[in-house]
Amino acid sequence: MDFKKITFEQLMQISPDLPEMKFHDESKAGWDGIAKPIDSLGNFEEIICRIAAIQKTAKPDISKKALIIMCADNGVVSEGVTQTDSSVTASVASLMGKRMSSVGVMTRDLDIDIITADIGIDTDDVIPGVRNMKIARGTGNITNMPAMDDKQCLDAINCGIGLVKECAGEGTGIIATGEMGIGNTTTSTALLCALTGEDPVNVTGRGAGLSDEGLKRKTDAIKRALEFHGLKGTKEITREYAFVALRKVGGLDIAGLAGIYIGGALFGIPVVIDGFISAVSALCASYLVPGCERFMIASHTGREKGTDRVLDKLGLKPVITADMALGEGTGAVMMFPLLDMAMSLYKDGVRFNDTPIEAYERQEK
Amino acid sequence: MDFKKITFEQLMQISPDLPEMKFHDESKAGWDGIAKPIDSLGNFEEIICRIAAIQKTAKPDISKKALIIMCADNGVVSEGVTQTDSSVTASVASLMGKRMSSVGVMTRDLDIDIITADIGIDTDDVIPGVRNMKIARGTGNITNMPAMDDKQCLDAINCGIGLVKECAGEGTGIIATGEMGIGNTTTSTALLCALTGEDPVNVTGRGAGLSDEGLKRKTDAIKRALEFHGLKGTKEITREYAFVALRKVGGLDIAGLAGIYIGGALFGIPVVIDGFISAVSALCASYLVPGCERFMIASHTGREKGTDRVLDKLGLKPVITADMALGEGTGAVMMFPLLDMAMSLYKDGVRFNDTPIEAYERQEK
Repeated sequence: MDFKKITFEQLMQISPDLPEMKFHDESKAGWDGIAKPIDSLGNFEEIICRIAAIQKTAKPDISKKALIIMCADNGVVSEGVTQTDSSVTASVASLMGKRMSSVGVMTRDLDIDIITADIGIDTDDVIPGVRNMKIARGTGNITNMPAMDDKQCLDAINCGIGLVKECAGEGTGIIATGEMGIGNTTTSTALLCALTGEDPVNVTGRGAGLSDEGLKRKTDAIKRALEFHGLKGTKEITREYAFVALRKVGGLDIAGLAGIYIGGALFGIPVVIDGFISAVSALCASYLVPGCERFMIASHTGREKGTDRVLDKLGLKPVITADMALGEGTGAVMMFPLLDMAMSLYKDGVRFNDTPIEAYERQEK
Repeated sequence: MDFKKITFEQLMQISPDLPEMKFHDESKAGWDGIAKPIDSLGNFEEIICRIAAIQKTAKPDISKKALIIMCADNGVVSEGVTQTDSSVTASVASLMGKRMSSVGVMTRDLDIDIITADIGIDTDDVIPGVRNMKIARGTGNITNMPAMDDKQCLDAINCGIGLVKECAGEGTGIIATGEMGIGNTTTSTALLCALTGEDPVNVTGRGAGLSDEGLKRKTDAIKRALEFHGLKGTKEITREYAFVALRKVGGLDIAGLAGIYIGGALFGIPVVIDGFISAVSALCASYLVPGCERFMIASHTGREKGTDRVLDKLGLKPVITADMALGEGTGAVMMFPLLDMAMSLYKDGVRFNDTPIEAYERQEK
């Protein structure tokens, strides 16, 4: 697809070129020829097959990897829904720019292009090492105003799509998602409720470690936001409704992440979901552009309530279960070495034809 | 501990020097000082703390890694409990010797010392690249005779301990376990039932892909073995009972693996459990040498029935859930890059003291 910035009308109509199952099946046949018990690499075999279908080749290539981290602030922080103030977003982003934040340190021995995007941090400073894509200095307080206007929300989505387009041009084979934004478990929980009709009481979590009282304030703020905007879920989520929900109770980071998933679908690149915020953004993207869930890969079951439910709705199975709640894409990048190991076996495992082990534990028919 | 080969009497009395909790707590304090939400790396924080306690230092080192793969044949294969014959064990071991088996290919970009041990393959050939530690050409058919005699079983345990001693001498900081042996899901299931009183019907799985009929034959063989040896579990598993169960219905590979876990406890090296067979060996080791479970790290929940239950009995939580059933240590080695990522953050993560983020998402009290 050749575009600069998509319009709202285009967004509501895009239909991505879906993954081709013939490459999935060809890839599965490849796995079945490797001298090991059939299906024995479990979910990793299926994930490689899905990547083959997405890249439309039985010889998929994920050697070039990227992590895109969307950073933005959230007006709802003024409701006391977090234990720190918004300035922490800029502080952590500035560490990210130096690859000194958690995900930067964790991946220092891995070959990953990390793009940290300031899509809405509440500062006028330009942060070294961080891509300046600022749309606004944070969002509106969702309890009494929309997070974004139409243009801001569309711009944020376009930022995500644009970054994926850039990665596609550089030959990137897989993209992990990450985020940083104080208050974004509040906005993503509100968006989840708006998209599913779920009661905030059931899905609001402690974020980075709220007290009981803080949790109550957060749940209450989400309730008030949903009521204020009249977003209580509908039977059938239209593309328009998903956009309105994202714009009103989401955030610039979430909209940017949704753009990455949409970009993955448009440019045929698998995108790895991180934790809760990333997963809710993925769910929203799947409503904005139906079919784009087929380009997503789940990584881990985070600690935040509701992550499992979201992944389940997307038809995806996480393979890491470690009660993590760090954000920044830390869970998503953990998939990279695991997928590399699986890919090595897929590409270069000894095949039945090449060994005397003709019948090595082949499935009995 | 300075020993050459432990005697049966020593085995029944060894009491390992347990992990020191003060280093666990010091390590946890280290995590808590890193500029990220408290506890946010979830189970990985706890695993690093446990490694600190095992290595008795708040600065644990897992940079040098080993994988020990125990290979052996099992007489019970003559009961039709597998879909391939025992010759496949030697064939795959010969691939292992060339680092061309599944785990060898998967780890080719990782720096791991791989020791493949022939502890009981049914061949007289010396396999290039495989350590010759052969105790017997396979075990007895457990349905009508003991798998091993006392000396063989003790020798196999000593092989495992000896290899860990060797690794300790080379500065290895962490060891993964693996196995290869046609028929060893049958023997390990029998051993699990003997140790827990579990009914074989509930825990016998399809191994590398048995048909319904094959599964019935396998379950039946396990039942007959338990009856023949009078091993139906007891209320309290003594160290002696665990040895007898291992010797009668286990295998040389399982005894060798138990030796690795015991060696881990004796030499203060954390040992990573792989799938079902490795987990049952770990459970047996925890009965043979109480306390040695504190030196174990779980990796994945395998497909084979009962793995979860075994890990739960050991008080361990796997972090990978990918329905794998490959063996060779493939699940265990997947932990290595993940632990390296966690360790990078633990060692070099930016600390609150070093940043303006004094209060970054600290837990509210």
